[in-house]
Amino acid sequence: MQNIICFVSDFGLEDTWVGVCRAVIYRACPQARVVDLAHQIPPFDIRKAAAVAASGVYQLPEAIHLVVVDPGVGGGRADLCVVTRSGTRLVGPDNGVLIPAARRAGGIAEVYAVDPANIDFRPPLGTFHARDVMAPAAAALACGVSPESLGSVVDPDKLAAAPFQPCRSEGTHVLSEVVDVDRFGSVRLGVGEEEMTELGLVGNRFEISFGHLVFDVPFGHTFSDVEIGETVAVLDSSGWLTLAVREASAAEKFGIEPGAPARIRPHG
Amino acid sequence: MQNIICFVSDFGLEDTWVGVCRAVIYRACPQARVVDLAHQIPPFDIRKAAAVAASGVYQLPEAIHLVVVDPGVGGGRADLCVVTRSGTRLVGPDNGVLIPAARRAGGIAEVYAVDPANIDFRPPLGTFHARDVMAPAAAALACGVSPESLGSVVDPDKLAAAPFQPCRSEGTHVLSEVVDVDRFGSVRLGVGEEEMTELGLVGNRFEISFGHLVFDVPFGHTFSDVEIGETVAVLDSSGWLTLAVREASAAEKFGIEPGAPARIRPHG
Amino acid sequence: MQNIICFVSDFGLEDTWVGVCRAVIYRACPQARVVDLAHQIPPFDIRKAAAVAASGVYQLPEAIHLVVVDPGVGGGRADLCVVTRSGTRLVGPDNGVLIPAARRAGGIAEVYAVDPANIDFRPPLGTFHARDVMAPAAAALACGVSPESLGSVVDPDKLAAAPFQPCRSEGTHVLSEVVDVDRFGSVRLGVGEEEMTELGLVGNRFEISFGHLVFDVPFGHTFSDVEIGETVAVLDSSGWLTLAVREASAAEKFGIEPGAPARIRPHG
Repeated sequence: MQNIICFVSDFGLEDTWVGVCRAVIYRACPQARVVDLAHQIPPFDIRKAAAVAASGVYQLPEAIHLVVVDPGVGGGRADLCVVTRSGTRLVGPDNGVLIPAARRAGGIAEVYAVDPANIDFRPPLGTFHARDVMAPAAAALACGVSPESLGSVVDPDKLAAAPFQPCRSEGTHVLSEVVDVDRFGSVRLGVGEEEMTELGLVGNRFEISFGHLVFDVPFGHTFSDVEIGETVAVLDSSGWLTLAVREASAAEKFGIEPGAPARIRPHG
Repeated sequence: MQNIICFVSDFGLEDTWVGVCRAVIYRACPQARVVDLAHQIPPFDIRKAAAVAASGVYQLPEAIHLVVVDPGVGGGRADLCVVTRSGTRLVGPDNGVLIPAARRAGGIAEVYAVDPANIDFRPPLGTFHARDVMAPAAAALACGVSPESLGSVVDPDKLAAAPFQPCRSEGTHVLSEVVDVDRFGSVRLGVGEEEMTELGLVGNRFEISFGHLVFDVPFGHTFSDVEIGETVAVLDSSGWLTLAVREASAAEKFGIEPGAPARIRPHG
Repeated sequence: MQNIICFVSDFGLEDTWVGVCRAVIYRACPQARVVDLAHQIPPFDIRKAAAVAASGVYQLPEAIHLVVVDPGVGGGRADLCVVTRSGTRLVGPDNGVLIPAARRAGGIAEVYAVDPANIDFRPPLGTFHARDVMAPAAAALACGVSPESLGSVVDPDKLAAAPFQPCRSEGTHVLSEVVDVDRFGSVRLGVGEEEMTELGLVGNRFEISFGHLVFDVPFGHTFSDVEIGETVAVLDSSGWLTLAVREASAAEKFGIEPGAPARIRPHG
């Protein structure tokens, strides 16, 4: 899986951008395999892209992850290659979009600012760094180039901030937020598998609160642990603690949106 | 084409699911080629997925077909591998979604319940059987593993029912239903090429009725056999008898929806 | 990149069409790599497809470009293979959809009408020439078959007209039109990089008028050359002179739509 490039962007599928980046990768590294994870991220939505990339990294840590939501393109922010402590390689702009994914793969080990001079770059460098810098950088990694060959070292403490923060304990609760709502309306909280254990979210029932909206729900293994139409919490397939309604949309039913603060505690 | 996996699902393209399944297949079988047939099936719409899969099998019978619309995931229904009498291999859940496609490829010859122990499986088995069981099973087939190696034999008579039934004769009519409406608004009836001959739907004109809405239309070779804006019946490229309006949407113009019963007879 | 086939169509992603064409190409030429550029072209919108194909050719001139928006399928129009003066190969129906792309790659050098007898064709020929003629023709090119082997020579002067005309000078102005609006709302004018030089569109500011709506804007290198919310002209990554608002939609903000006539001149 060293040659698989997972690609997340807000490019949509109506224009040529995704395909052009894919062709650029194939041209630079014929043995690469580009896998589209999601390109329908709303334009400029760094939060959503960061959550989707973190979902991808949880499931495919061995792959290279190319993540491009880039409202500041051309404005001087660096094009990064991040290597995590568990060895996952991420490529994307320095606007926070890579940070949650890096956290889920052991945290940041090294960061490099990709220098166009070090890749198969065709000037001028204008409005499309994904095609001209970041896709070629991912292609180079897929073909065995080392991350440190791509550019100069960057201090991880000087990177742009993540669009959402890690969950944390406060008394008997864990504080988090809704990081994503999936196609089926399941509400993903920013709490991963390891964090559940570390912060004491263990047991068969959880209380999950969004302001005055309070759920007391079973923590199930799958959606089918409850009856159709009932509410359940699961560790979903992307590794997030998730509030779902079996065969319906929890987000729609309860009016919950990304960004909403959440408080969680074991219950009973 | 033995290594091509045609993939149909209701996963949409906003989340990581399709890409993750694709990467899992490449990891398990590098020589596999995954071809997306359709992932915008409305959530949980088994009827639509079954019609789309049947369209795919008609056009690409040599490929492996992976079909995942799976509202009951985790609830105990089996993950199936179906082999048809003409040799097409289908992988999907036991909820009826594979049956119409199997009918179009000669009918069911053998069925196996995929056992995770027999594939490249990473426990735990939770909410995402597509990634954890069905995609690996399709990858195994693409790499030459025999269907009977995937799991235990299942009695075809004990499978969940199809979401729509085959067409049948009643007096001078053939009774069927609308199985799908395509992007261009063409109305696909559940009558295939072989069934047209068997049930006597031959000739240059057909009468097609949806309740009180009755069409007397030419049976053409292509849409261009009638003028722009006129109505025509054709055997469409997916092998369904189809009611279409040239360069417009028949479904919108006449208010016809999937599931509507239809009666057809030769006319004139 | 000789084996990369860039694919543009109005097939959408809800049905099996795109995937089936892709599988047909893999079957005929296993070393081909199909790259989807855009399939969400509105049904029958030849203008949009032509603009998207021209964007693709500008970025990937070495690839084979398969462009299918084909309201007249089955009605006798030819399936074309166009070779441009700079060597780009295009495959699509004779309805004008290939012409703007050919213009951007040096103009038309040779045209052939694909004869099904010369490709891996499975009769009958009905409603789906993309699958049955054009995809196999593109696959043949990807596997090294020469364009002249695909069919008989066609006189370029007898091709169907393009959906939009090249820009041209009128006094101190260049006359053009909006050929496309991208996902981010940027307004692409039908003026390419070479045409800007040829027609005297040089300098740091342009006046761009749509009827009574007149912009006096800087001509920037990237969107980031202006502040968030401000208007700028750039040569976009697809090679079109483009009016954009940084981090917002110019098309929505000013109510500009594809097809709108535009007048441009250097200013200041």
